[in-house]
Amino acid sequence: MSSTECRPFLPLDNDSIYKVETVVILETQVDDMTSQAIAYTTEKLLQNGALDVYTQAITMKKSRCGTLITVICDRDHQSICEQILFQETSTLGIRFRLQERKILDRQICEVMTEYGSARVKIARREGFETVQPEYDDCAKLARSQNIPLTQIQQAVFLAGLALLKSKS
Amino acid sequence: MSSTECRPFLPLDNDSIYKVETVVILETQVDDMTSQAIAYTTEKLLQNGALDVYTQAITMKKSRCGTLITVICDRDHQSICEQILFQETSTLGIRFRLQERKILDRQICEVMTEYGSARVKIARREGFETVQPEYDDCAKLARSQNIPLTQIQQAVFLAGLALLKSKS
Amino acid sequence: MSSTECRPFLPLDNDSIYKVETVVILETQVDDMTSQAIAYTTEKLLQNGALDVYTQAITMKKSRCGTLITVICDRDHQSICEQILFQETSTLGIRFRLQERKILDRQICEVMTEYGSARVKIARREGFETVQPEYDDCAKLARSQNIPLTQIQQAVFLAGLALLKSKS
Amino acid sequence: MSSTECRPFLPLDNDSIYKVETVVILETQVDDMTSQAIAYTTEKLLQNGALDVYTQAITMKKSRCGTLITVICDRDHQSICEQILFQETSTLGIRFRLQERKILDRQICEVMTEYGSARVKIARREGFETVQPEYDDCAKLARSQNIPLTQIQQAVFLAGLALLKSKS
Amino acid sequence: MSSTECRPFLPLDNDSIYKVETVVILETQVDDMTSQAIAYTTEKLLQNGALDVYTQAITMKKSRCGTLITVICDRDHQSICEQILFQETSTLGIRFRLQERKILDRQICEVMTEYGSARVKIARREGFETVQPEYDDCAKLARSQNIPLTQIQQAVFLAGLALLKSKS
Amino acid sequence: MSSTECRPFLPLDNDSIYKVETVVILETQVDDMTSQAIAYTTEKLLQNGALDVYTQAITMKKSRCGTLITVICDRDHQSICEQILFQETSTLGIRFRLQERKILDRQICEVMTEYGSARVKIARREGFETVQPEYDDCAKLARSQNIPLTQIQQAVFLAGLALLKSKS
Repeated sequence: MSSTECRPFLPLDNDSIYKVETVVILETQVDDMTSQAIAYTTEKLLQNGALDVYTQAITMKKSRCGTLITVICDRDHQSICEQILFQETSTLGIRFRLQERKILDRQICEVMTEYGSARVKIARREGFETVQPEYDDCAKLARSQNIPLTQIQQAVFLAGLALLKSKS
Repeated sequence: MSSTECRPFLPLDNDSIYKVETVVILETQVDDMTSQAIAYTTEKLLQNGALDVYTQAITMKKSRCGTLITVICDRDHQSICEQILFQETSTLGIRFRLQERKILDRQICEVMTEYGSARVKIARREGFETVQPEYDDCAKLARSQNIPLTQIQQAVFLAGLALLKSKS
Repeated sequence: MSSTECRPFLPLDNDSIYKVETVVILETQVDDMTSQAIAYTTEKLLQNGALDVYTQAITMKKSRCGTLITVICDRDHQSICEQILFQETSTLGIRFRLQERKILDRQICEVMTEYGSARVKIARREGFETVQPEYDDCAKLARSQNIPLTQIQQAVFLAGLALLKSKS
Repeated sequence: MSSTECRPFLPLDNDSIYKVETVVILETQVDDMTSQAIAYTTEKLLQNGALDVYTQAITMKKSRCGTLITVICDRDHQSICEQILFQETSTLGIRFRLQERKILDRQICEVMTEYGSARVKIARREGFETVQPEYDDCAKLARSQNIPLTQIQQAVFLAGLALLKSKS
Repeated sequence: MSSTECRPFLPLDNDSIYKVETVVILETQVDDMTSQAIAYTTEKLLQNGALDVYTQAITMKKSRCGTLITVICDRDHQSICEQILFQETSTLGIRFRLQERKILDRQICEVMTEYGSARVKIARREGFETVQPEYDDCAKLARSQNIPLTQIQQAVFLAGLALLKSKS
Repeated sequence: MSSTECRPFLPLDNDSIYKVETVVILETQVDDMTSQAIAYTTEKLLQNGALDVYTQAITMKKSRCGTLITVICDRDHQSICEQILFQETSTLGIRFRLQERKILDRQICEVMTEYGSARVKIARREGFETVQPEYDDCAKLARSQNIPLTQIQQAVFLAGLALLKSKS
């Protein structure tokens, strides 16, 4: 977290609250890997530049259960992500396509609560702004002070709302 | 239901039983929403013109469970559907693409049974036609008369079959 | 299995371990079919040339559970696969798109173990090769001799590793 | 909702925040029903006294997908729930057992917000109390005023917190 | 199938449509097995006397996906089923309990259709009887004559209904 | 890991390869929690003595998706686990029951490979022993040396097999 992320929102272009960018979607399905190996692959993909990775339970050939792995990355990371899939999974084939997506502008700001400080994500949506406490920060405070997570999230959320009001 | 939907099938164009149309596919995944809020979003999308909406359980970053939301709409409703996703979900990004689909011609006809009237969907498929009782009509009859749903569906299905034979 | 499949790997083209080919993706979702009928459809698609078929549990309109069916085929089999979907499922619409995929070169070789012979798939990956015992062969040996499947797979895997070393 | 539900918490018995009661668990699995028929069964069970009903996707005999239906009811409603399962599902067998559960004391109170009034559930937990806005009330306000559901839930939650503080 | 299974229903005992029997439930969860090995285990359990086996996707320790395996068997087969679980899965522990279940009386009868003969299951439920075509028979007819499965199931179902009427 | 865990197997009691122990099963379902909060609860339960925790996607009241949480613990930890469930989840009720389970004897031994040392779990099963590489050790070696996880697991597995042979 750097404080510079808690900046003013970008000026709106053409009345639009989002920008459009192109991402690469990689997909492959496997039925002979363990859950452990799939989790390891996900972790390695994210550490090597994947924007997002998700897996889904599927029913495959001969009605066997399997897993569909989906990787979202930018074009600069397509090659390394494909390499990891061919190294860490049992797949023999990867489907790929380009896809556009619309992305909201968002800020990461730090707020202070009675339990300590935590980050909140502030997103500018259609006509209003939302505050989302960062899970990792809240979980860290909850663990170290043995306070229910929801209590922490509630305090961080209220502090984020107060910050939002002070800025408008 | 209007009786005008129980019309003759459209003449076949080029020996084809379907027409081709272009739809928009919107996709986004979330991991910090409750099931209640996801169900609400689905309902609102369908009320505002989405052709179909479905959600899937996925495993995401740091192996957390999440939900992939997929919206199918025509181009005229892309903008309102995107706006609802940005308003009602916690997502910061929506992927979108155009996709073609093939659609069968179908009729909606009303049939009478010993339990009351209900609609059936008649679809012209490859070399034969199928009858599908409308769930909502059958459930309504089953509820009001406290008869097992399968008994109602069976009666409506048989009446639909009879109608089909009378037309051919 | 023919012995001719256990051939040398194809010469590498442009330093690439894979070739690129175009496949067709068909998708449709249903909520009024039984699991039995869905399994039958999958089987029929695979017998008629589909490269792969998988299904996923989804939550649909009015929060009903449903099934998303995905078919991967080449362009020559798109028509027959669509026809099967319109014949065997209750769907009224099929989405389709072309998509590219990258495919690794692989060999199918037979190996001998103390329990009998079985095939292994050998794939050339980034900087190394992997050995994957064929499930059907292993299951057959395990069933006929009443030996734990993992014991058989382990023996076939070790024989495959030995073959790999002898070839390099 | 009746205002009498917003009463003082019951005096604590033996330093316990919960009471113990016995419920009946009914379970059955099916693989030849549609999602529509399963949803209808769930609805009918809840209307006839089931305390809770939930279904899960399972993989069954011959690797076919199926559904496990679980019904939780008290002993007075075991008979009617079993009868509904035998009437509305395709099952030929129902497993049943008695099970104990621990239940927290909770209040249902009405709160007023700028968007209208809504109920909140207040539960006494270990050392603190929690406020949970009633989804149905929030969704109704959100629909009628076309305001994002999360905005409504947030307002109701804050009003519930204020009520909680005023009572302590 | 033997024709002796198409017998009169058993006389009702105490106005009850079901009999009660005791079964054993075995449960274990794994996260380091492939789908292939799980399917093999299910098959082997059923071949060795398990009454039913089903598996469910679960999220386990460190949020890894895993599989919960549930086996239903009678007391005579508990030992062999446990032995198979310890042989074929990676589990180190199996939970077990006795549970009662209520079982409907049912008949298996053969019916003739224009496509050939097939079995139907006739079950006596609360106040009515139901007809369920046997999937395996219908699938066999559909495959051999290349007719949509639903057409076959429909013909078998109608023949079963006719048989039911002729008997009452 | 302590080397003292790599001890001889316990003498067999009554020709049995397992011992029987009693565990407590806690169950509760929720539909208004985020995936983040559920993952946090699982982690906290395991840190406070739960033997195992797993969650499953379920379909609940009004067809909303929800989560079933199952906790397995011994009787000494039932109270703390219930307290965590009431603190960290939104549930108002927890079902509980005692259940027996059969546990195999197992050893944890350290083995050396060309990539470094790792632990393997050796379990005595019906008539044979199995070797399972510890995922955490393998993942650590794979990460630090950037070698495919399967390569590491394979080396550790072979070293474990060698250890097993040397002991018999």
